[in-house]
Amino acid sequence: MDKPTRRIGVLTGGGDCPGLNAVIRAVTKDAIHHGIEVLGIEDGFLGLIEDRIRPLDERDVSNILTIGGTILGSSNKANPAKMPVGKDKSGKIIYKDLTEACLITLESQGIDTLVVVGGDGTMSCAAPFVERGIRAVGVPKTIDNDLWGTELTFGHLTAVEIATEALDRIHTTAASHHRAMVVEVMGRNAGWIALASGVASGSDVILLPEMPFDIDVVNEHVAMRSTKGKRFTIVCCAEGAYPRGGAQVVERNDPMSPDPIRLGGIAKWVSSQIEEKTSVESRHVVLGHVQRGGTPYAFDRILATLFGDAAMDLILNQRYSRLVAWQNGRITDVPLLESANRQRLVPADDPLVAAAKSVSTCFGI
Amino acid sequence: MDKPTRRIGVLTGGGDCPGLNAVIRAVTKDAIHHGIEVLGIEDGFLGLIEDRIRPLDERDVSNILTIGGTILGSSNKANPAKMPVGKDKSGKIIYKDLTEACLITLESQGIDTLVVVGGDGTMSCAAPFVERGIRAVGVPKTIDNDLWGTELTFGHLTAVEIATEALDRIHTTAASHHRAMVVEVMGRNAGWIALASGVASGSDVILLPEMPFDIDVVNEHVAMRSTKGKRFTIVCCAEGAYPRGGAQVVERNDPMSPDPIRLGGIAKWVSSQIEEKTSVESRHVVLGHVQRGGTPYAFDRILATLFGDAAMDLILNQRYSRLVAWQNGRITDVPLLESANRQRLVPADDPLVAAAKSVSTCFGI
Amino acid sequence: MDKPTRRIGVLTGGGDCPGLNAVIRAVTKDAIHHGIEVLGIEDGFLGLIEDRIRPLDERDVSNILTIGGTILGSSNKANPAKMPVGKDKSGKIIYKDLTEACLITLESQGIDTLVVVGGDGTMSCAAPFVERGIRAVGVPKTIDNDLWGTELTFGHLTAVEIATEALDRIHTTAASHHRAMVVEVMGRNAGWIALASGVASGSDVILLPEMPFDIDVVNEHVAMRSTKGKRFTIVCCAEGAYPRGGAQVVERNDPMSPDPIRLGGIAKWVSSQIEEKTSVESRHVVLGHVQRGGTPYAFDRILATLFGDAAMDLILNQRYSRLVAWQNGRITDVPLLESANRQRLVPADDPLVAAAKSVSTCFGI
Amino acid sequence: MDKPTRRIGVLTGGGDCPGLNAVIRAVTKDAIHHGIEVLGIEDGFLGLIEDRIRPLDERDVSNILTIGGTILGSSNKANPAKMPVGKDKSGKIIYKDLTEACLITLESQGIDTLVVVGGDGTMSCAAPFVERGIRAVGVPKTIDNDLWGTELTFGHLTAVEIATEALDRIHTTAASHHRAMVVEVMGRNAGWIALASGVASGSDVILLPEMPFDIDVVNEHVAMRSTKGKRFTIVCCAEGAYPRGGAQVVERNDPMSPDPIRLGGIAKWVSSQIEEKTSVESRHVVLGHVQRGGTPYAFDRILATLFGDAAMDLILNQRYSRLVAWQNGRITDVPLLESANRQRLVPADDPLVAAAKSVSTCFGI
Repeated sequence: MDKPTRRIGVLTGGGDCPGLNAVIRAVTKDAIHHGIEVLGIEDGFLGLIEDRIRPLDERDVSNILTIGGTILGSSNKANPAKMPVGKDKSGKIIYKDLTEACLITLESQGIDTLVVVGGDGTMSCAAPFVERGIRAVGVPKTIDNDLWGTELTFGHLTAVEIATEALDRIHTTAASHHRAMVVEVMGRNAGWIALASGVASGSDVILLPEMPFDIDVVNEHVAMRSTKGKRFTIVCCAEGAYPRGGAQVVERNDPMSPDPIRLGGIAKWVSSQIEEKTSVESRHVVLGHVQRGGTPYAFDRILATLFGDAAMDLILNQRYSRLVAWQNGRITDVPLLESANRQRLVPADDPLVAAAKSVSTCFGI
Repeated sequence: MDKPTRRIGVLTGGGDCPGLNAVIRAVTKDAIHHGIEVLGIEDGFLGLIEDRIRPLDERDVSNILTIGGTILGSSNKANPAKMPVGKDKSGKIIYKDLTEACLITLESQGIDTLVVVGGDGTMSCAAPFVERGIRAVGVPKTIDNDLWGTELTFGHLTAVEIATEALDRIHTTAASHHRAMVVEVMGRNAGWIALASGVASGSDVILLPEMPFDIDVVNEHVAMRSTKGKRFTIVCCAEGAYPRGGAQVVERNDPMSPDPIRLGGIAKWVSSQIEEKTSVESRHVVLGHVQRGGTPYAFDRILATLFGDAAMDLILNQRYSRLVAWQNGRITDVPLLESANRQRLVPADDPLVAAAKSVSTCFGI
Repeated sequence: MDKPTRRIGVLTGGGDCPGLNAVIRAVTKDAIHHGIEVLGIEDGFLGLIEDRIRPLDERDVSNILTIGGTILGSSNKANPAKMPVGKDKSGKIIYKDLTEACLITLESQGIDTLVVVGGDGTMSCAAPFVERGIRAVGVPKTIDNDLWGTELTFGHLTAVEIATEALDRIHTTAASHHRAMVVEVMGRNAGWIALASGVASGSDVILLPEMPFDIDVVNEHVAMRSTKGKRFTIVCCAEGAYPRGGAQVVERNDPMSPDPIRLGGIAKWVSSQIEEKTSVESRHVVLGHVQRGGTPYAFDRILATLFGDAAMDLILNQRYSRLVAWQNGRITDVPLLESANRQRLVPADDPLVAAAKSVSTCFGI
Repeated sequence: MDKPTRRIGVLTGGGDCPGLNAVIRAVTKDAIHHGIEVLGIEDGFLGLIEDRIRPLDERDVSNILTIGGTILGSSNKANPAKMPVGKDKSGKIIYKDLTEACLITLESQGIDTLVVVGGDGTMSCAAPFVERGIRAVGVPKTIDNDLWGTELTFGHLTAVEIATEALDRIHTTAASHHRAMVVEVMGRNAGWIALASGVASGSDVILLPEMPFDIDVVNEHVAMRSTKGKRFTIVCCAEGAYPRGGAQVVERNDPMSPDPIRLGGIAKWVSSQIEEKTSVESRHVVLGHVQRGGTPYAFDRILATLFGDAAMDLILNQRYSRLVAWQNGRITDVPLLESANRQRLVPADDPLVAAAKSVSTCFGI
């Protein structure tokens, strides 16, 4: 009676990712089990700014384990500390710090702890709140699996499965038509999806952002396969891969960089180069958003459930400002802001890179 | 003893398609069962020109039922009557009629009947042979399901399933981020894949080549959904769809037509228009080759087996120059060259169009 | 104003089936579009007896297209004309006619037309209402595809796909271990699922209820394959298949029939016979309920949408006492009670049976 | 020239498992890359006894990455040290030690190192060879993931995915019909598959061999759910799960133990108990061999490739009598025979058990 009920708020930020709903479900069920109320904050930090918040009960999280995306909605761009609120006369965007509005929402809704599910950017948005003493725990989320501090995140493996299935399908077309097929998968800065799906599908060439490639080496590999009677080649290419040195180097992440090798265009460029230099007919495919939506595979539902449970454990043990993490094959946790501005990239000596080389995969280097 | 063994040759032409191997398997098994020898012609009519032909026995067609593509290989461009053999001084391609070379191959290999598996183009290539008295039966093949004379072809439904699965995945992303998502599926001239996968996935807008759309109608539909609380829209768009009238009309099938609405670019254009006119964030995805490769779904394996069996029935009954077909829910056959230069397009009063309208689907008209 | 709003009631009866929700969605959306109110009746005729009825609006049928089962619930046994209401002293079940209670519900809820989605049994339950002048239209539903009057029903193909995928998986185990594997699929009286999934998976033996088999013929086929170097055999067996003649004949559909060949036990019996008589190691698998649940494949979502739309067309055109049907590759309709007590069985000369024989499939006869 | 070529032999033993071919492929490609010849031994140790051995080149391992089972074949029972060779007069099986025959095969084929891919039993068969100085490295294989010394094995996750997909499908049937559904998955002694697929599918009850359950607790959970308005229950049950204490305890692994709770019958028994005691209609499904065959999911192809690569690393570094293993999220190795006669069971305090309890899962205890 005299002990007031605790109340936590959950939000999901950044790009969607299969498994988000499994986290929301685990947190909500576990909290209710411990007599803690759960509020769902809509569309990430935007809901906190605009006070769009609704209670979550067991019914709300029933049957969501298999559903992709997030029942709470997300927003890619809402950073309370720097919200675009309009434009000045010269057309420049005016930003405003709306942290205070969020604090008022937290206060008025009686939220004593935030569960923040998101990536690097979302955790950065949480920083000002942590610094002002708001209790928060984080759950890492990234399709690309490039978050510093955790070796694995939910959703990543689902993306790898989807990419692998696509590569499997394309394999038969390549073989039937004696073509090179260049398939572009997600991964702007880190090539984990390309590496994993490339190995899983037995791709002949894998191109990663971490290893700028030499297009001549790629072409030689394609040509070499032809002479060995292999009349087709599969290239699995991260969207952020780029050719080594010289005039071909482009600004990654810069949508304004010149065609044809700007971000998102690398598969097309590699394909055109192969066709031009090797006389092997070539096609390209950009998988795009298909990789991040839909029903999570079993593994990611499990990992997300473990992460949600671990987040609640942190709260129950009053260990705030921590980020759930996976290290050495086990759940653990790290400082919430540890991963800010740091990325986990594929190292040159990664065991999977070595294994790929052992089965004759070309990395274009 | 005195009756010489019959010998048939099988070739697959045009783009690959799930179910080709099921046809090859059915023809080969059935032929062997009737004491007929089977020769596999490699890479479509190219193998006939170059005399690349190998015997097929039961072992060759074992375990291929589930494999996409074609074990015989295919070629998109080999037309014996008009083969490119080089360039003249001005760079113009020189064509030559190599029909005679093919006839020599048929003679020397002792092939008395051709089984031609392919689409419109492949059947056209077969015409000169039929005219010279070569026995041939055809099996229709088209991912797009736009071949005149048959209501259904194998591979089409597999493409529809793959497109639908992609649309399902994209649905959760659209809902989580309150976006419009424009998904481009195959279909240059006919919108069967877009219509079927659009209805199967519950897409909100379906754009077909047969119904030039008004982008304003599309935008109004997106906006109307927002006002009704539906914060996202899925657009399923055939690659050959195009906006109605005016300056925006582009030459379909002309790769030289100006950006941004040229073939293959329609999804991007629609997406940009939605974002510009409705303030709803929008993304596009081009599914591409993923739709035509890989393991066929059960239905297509069955249909392809029925087609292969029907082709052998034609041969056993000495009914040559016929094309296997599916009409009124049953196997039948039509004149081999009936479908040349004619396409089966989606009629405005197709029952599935009507059903789609009944569940509030917008066709942009 | 002066024209009162129409109000229809929808119920789903019998075993669940992928696509039921697509029908409910199509009917509801189309009705609302025409200004007709829709009421959902819970758990089939049971909801009509117990007056458990709720309005359905667009929101209720949003996002249900991909979900298996039925959002309305179903009941296998509720026949208003003969409801079990208790037991007499001797333990015999007492039945009561509750048709009147249903009529009162219809009256009080203002339902002017019933949309009955179900199989043979459900349509029989609808008969007394039709006879008393209640307006009703039917939508056929059967996993087994054995309903008289329609050549195709939604859900059937999903079952075939699921069974085929299972047979594909089992294929590699059989091949690795040189075993016979006997896989039992659904189909008590009709073998459509076994025939289709058997052909699609390239099963070596297919056993159907319509063709009592000779176990010696099956064993000879297994042994013959061994001598030809094929060290494994896949048997696809309908649950209602049974051996021909003699003491082995069992009462189908009689759960009391003696082991080991009673319904549901046929796969086990065939497997034990193979192992005993041929020295080929053998295993069996009973797929069971996995075949009837979960997300429908695209084709069934389309067919169910067409069926729902056709049901509404009947209502809008005031053509009552009709059952939507699929004949000759097109939507049509037949008298509602036409299918009562009649089944569509696999004929001996079905084209797919012929095609299966062409690729050397053994039917045990 | 003066350095003779090395020659290794690869065999796969025990039950098949998705990923075996990925191991064979990785070993073969890597070996050839290092100038080492590879021989494939057919049907596990049986091929060594019977000298059925064939060379493997790149072509043999091309396109096998996605194929389930093992291209080399396997045998469950061939233990060279104790081979059944016939029966004596009293019908007792006569065993013979055929180790010597195997050594002759190794000698005559010039095999200097064995790569043994298998589980506990297969490694035990390898022991006499290791003791006689034959160089060997092992790769662990178990669907159940219960091998001591490694936290993860390929194939396990594929089984979990297949089981989860089946549970997803059954979920909609249970919900539509307000039933309890009891699904039996693999796991005689260890419940890893049941635990993982149970959590991934959101099963309400999970029964493991490691935690003998109280059927009354299960029934209470089913009844409790009914009172809370949840009209269905999913039970995910390992095949080796069994009720606690009393007369109901049966000999696990003893096929002769009395019905109805003998191995393989537990799902049926639980289902019948639920129906009898709670008045909730109940059904059971035994997934069986479907779980162990077919195309491996991407994760298992990757893990198997890493394992094959690690086995070759051991050989190249001349570290024999070692078993490749996965510990703490990384590849490592342990003594080859370490895992003999020891199993890795689910501990009561496993994090996934804790997470399952957090989301209200009942373990029947």
